[in-house]
Amino acid sequence: MKVHLTRRYSFSASHRLHNEALSAEENRRVYGKCNNAYGHGHNYSLEVTLSGRVDPRTGMVCDLGLLDNVVSHEVLDRFDHENLNLRPEFAGRAPTSEILAKQIFELLKERFPAAQVEKIRLEETSQNSFEYAGGGEIRP
Amino acid sequence: MKVHLTRRYSFSASHRLHNEALSAEENRRVYGKCNNAYGHGHNYSLEVTLSGRVDPRTGMVCDLGLLDNVVSHEVLDRFDHENLNLRPEFAGRAPTSEILAKQIFELLKERFPAAQVEKIRLEETSQNSFEYAGGGEIRP
Amino acid sequence: MKVHLTRRYSFSASHRLHNEALSAEENRRVYGKCNNAYGHGHNYSLEVTLSGRVDPRTGMVCDLGLLDNVVSHEVLDRFDHENLNLRPEFAGRAPTSEILAKQIFELLKERFPAAQVEKIRLEETSQNSFEYAGGGEIRP
Amino acid sequence: MKVHLTRRYSFSASHRLHNEALSAEENRRVYGKCNNAYGHGHNYSLEVTLSGRVDPRTGMVCDLGLLDNVVSHEVLDRFDHENLNLRPEFAGRAPTSEILAKQIFELLKERFPAAQVEKIRLEETSQNSFEYAGGGEIRP
Amino acid sequence: MKVHLTRRYSFSASHRLHNEALSAEENRRVYGKCNNAYGHGHNYSLEVTLSGRVDPRTGMVCDLGLLDNVVSHEVLDRFDHENLNLRPEFAGRAPTSEILAKQIFELLKERFPAAQVEKIRLEETSQNSFEYAGGGEIRP
Amino acid sequence: MKVHLTRRYSFSASHRLHNEALSAEENRRVYGKCNNAYGHGHNYSLEVTLSGRVDPRTGMVCDLGLLDNVVSHEVLDRFDHENLNLRPEFAGRAPTSEILAKQIFELLKERFPAAQVEKIRLEETSQNSFEYAGGGEIRP
Repeated sequence: MKVHLTRRYSFSASHRLHNEALSAEENRRVYGKCNNAYGHGHNYSLEVTLSGRVDPRTGMVCDLGLLDNVVSHEVLDRFDHENLNLRPEFAGRAPTSEILAKQIFELLKERFPAAQVEKIRLEETSQNSFEYAGGGEIRP
Repeated sequence: MKVHLTRRYSFSASHRLHNEALSAEENRRVYGKCNNAYGHGHNYSLEVTLSGRVDPRTGMVCDLGLLDNVVSHEVLDRFDHENLNLRPEFAGRAPTSEILAKQIFELLKERFPAAQVEKIRLEETSQNSFEYAGGGEIRP
Repeated sequence: MKVHLTRRYSFSASHRLHNEALSAEENRRVYGKCNNAYGHGHNYSLEVTLSGRVDPRTGMVCDLGLLDNVVSHEVLDRFDHENLNLRPEFAGRAPTSEILAKQIFELLKERFPAAQVEKIRLEETSQNSFEYAGGGEIRP
Repeated sequence: MKVHLTRRYSFSASHRLHNEALSAEENRRVYGKCNNAYGHGHNYSLEVTLSGRVDPRTGMVCDLGLLDNVVSHEVLDRFDHENLNLRPEFAGRAPTSEILAKQIFELLKERFPAAQVEKIRLEETSQNSFEYAGGGEIRP
Repeated sequence: MKVHLTRRYSFSASHRLHNEALSAEENRRVYGKCNNAYGHGHNYSLEVTLSGRVDPRTGMVCDLGLLDNVVSHEVLDRFDHENLNLRPEFAGRAPTSEILAKQIFELLKERFPAAQVEKIRLEETSQNSFEYAGGGEIRP
Repeated sequence: MKVHLTRRYSFSASHRLHNEALSAEENRRVYGKCNNAYGHGHNYSLEVTLSGRVDPRTGMVCDLGLLDNVVSHEVLDRFDHENLNLRPEFAGRAPTSEILAKQIFELLKERFPAAQVEKIRLEETSQNSFEYAGGGEIRP
């Protein structure tokens, strides 16, 4: 009996979409107002989906206390109330939500012995969300 | 032409996460405050997803009146405004949302001749949700 | 310059609407399925609205850390994951959301020296909410 | 590295569920109050999900400006603030959300050279949603 | 002890904003695409706020069953799945949400002997809402 | 006949809560992680509430096109995708939501000849919101 568990977290961060390998004009064309010089910010809503066999003793897929500890330590402590452009994870790259979703997946995927990280869903605004479910290299 | 239809229902119930096969200390450690002696409760949001071929005569996958009748009879009448620990479906088991999602799937899966129950999604709080899509025994 | 600040909290609890001063039949008639013998539960969403002068030094009405501490201590520790019928605050009374909102207002109203508790809003389900803004005795 | 991007749009339209190939009585039985003679309406929430390889230069799956232009031109200009029964896309058919989701998928599916339209999700009300992910003929 | 109770309902209807006392050009200028010839529609979310003294016997402001009956009979049966332009309540007037909110207030205000209708809030879309709290003539 | 109209907008911005008149240690104590050196960001949800007499010719309180133009020009063009600390409106002050709500009220209050700006509600996150309804000096 396999169940998917999804738990929602939130954090706030600032970023500026800007790639130093592009010219100023290209940056402006590619990123529009997201390239504004001094950045802007978002309340990110993060959904972590785990799957696993329901433990017949506890009736649960994963202890939520463990999940909260891992997500706090690996994700929230790292990105909450920070400027993403200054984080080493984004050195030389624009901190788009696509790449942030992939980063979070990589940070979490080995951390749950009895469950599998199925998917990361990152909601940037109520209009836009991004999902990453593994499979693919971050720098092809 | 196959379409997925998802319809949302809600019900309120109380439960206490407690497994009589575990010691008091183990119960407390496994379930935390969800093991508090006199229980607590939730507004459950239930999403039932059916899939099927769109009937060329009606343009619909499933008559919503039929779906509502089945869900009311099989799920809402059974669990709404009840204490889940006292329901026979949970005899000898902790009424976790994982097991409740599986139960609801089993109660509905044979009831729609022209459509298939694809998935049950049960939102326990706005932070936690559980999905079950079949495949696996309830007591392994 | 006076601003209203509203901060949202949530907790889960069970209750049964039942007044021992009424007959079984009256209880059933007044409270309907909310009178079911073994109770049911809700995820309560609580909004606390404070008003006050914006401190010219900090630009804030109230320190949110202080607000969180007070609400955790006075409200969440008291009611979260509990059976409301067993709480002393509801001895001899049905634990309706009307009375719970009033109780929470009373628990908080003297706790903020520089701000005023304007209103408590308690959402019992996404369909029903209750507001109490002071003024009136709890047992008239 | 493949990411799914979902962007949400909304539009308002009226419709009447009615199929001229059915008798008045059959229409009433099949569609219930949705068959009321002068129609009713909805705020549709539309979610378009694209998938694709993250462009290593931009860190993005698809330019959101391009996506907005295509959806505005192909979907919103066509259906927003219109009566769906009078649109040529629904000639001879009841404008159900199942068929509307399929129509929107067909209108969008060839328009993004570097990304794939994975899924259309159409929320008719907060209670009902419909998903179409391709595969199947519209008139079988 | 006075508490405000708010209960939420929803209905779907179509309308066209058009005033026959205005020229075609004026109608188009005043109402924009809401004047499109064949109408469009909305899912209206209706919030009814009652206030009253909490009954010391029941702990409640108003019986919700009574409230539901009155709102179903006076509002939902009248407007749900209808074309508002064809309702007698809007003869000679454009069925704007401002006027609809006022109409609903008038339909409900005398119906609750022990509670007062404080406010009607009508959400036309997730972006727009309208509140009417009495006081003023509908045709000045 | 007086109706309140509320319309919702959103924008994204970054800020750092920091007051140069305070020491580094005081800033850290007062603002906590909101004082992190390189800032963070939010998706702000802005609700503008206008009140006015319903125009008997149009059935409306205020033309929504006019409202959108004013809010776009005065608020969104100014703050969307910007770093609030660098805006002249916040020179010498921490850009808290309390002060931002007041600023937006001041920017809008004289702009609607036939309607009154009743209230600005600014939602900083889904947990926190701030309301300003006029009356009081910004620097007392």
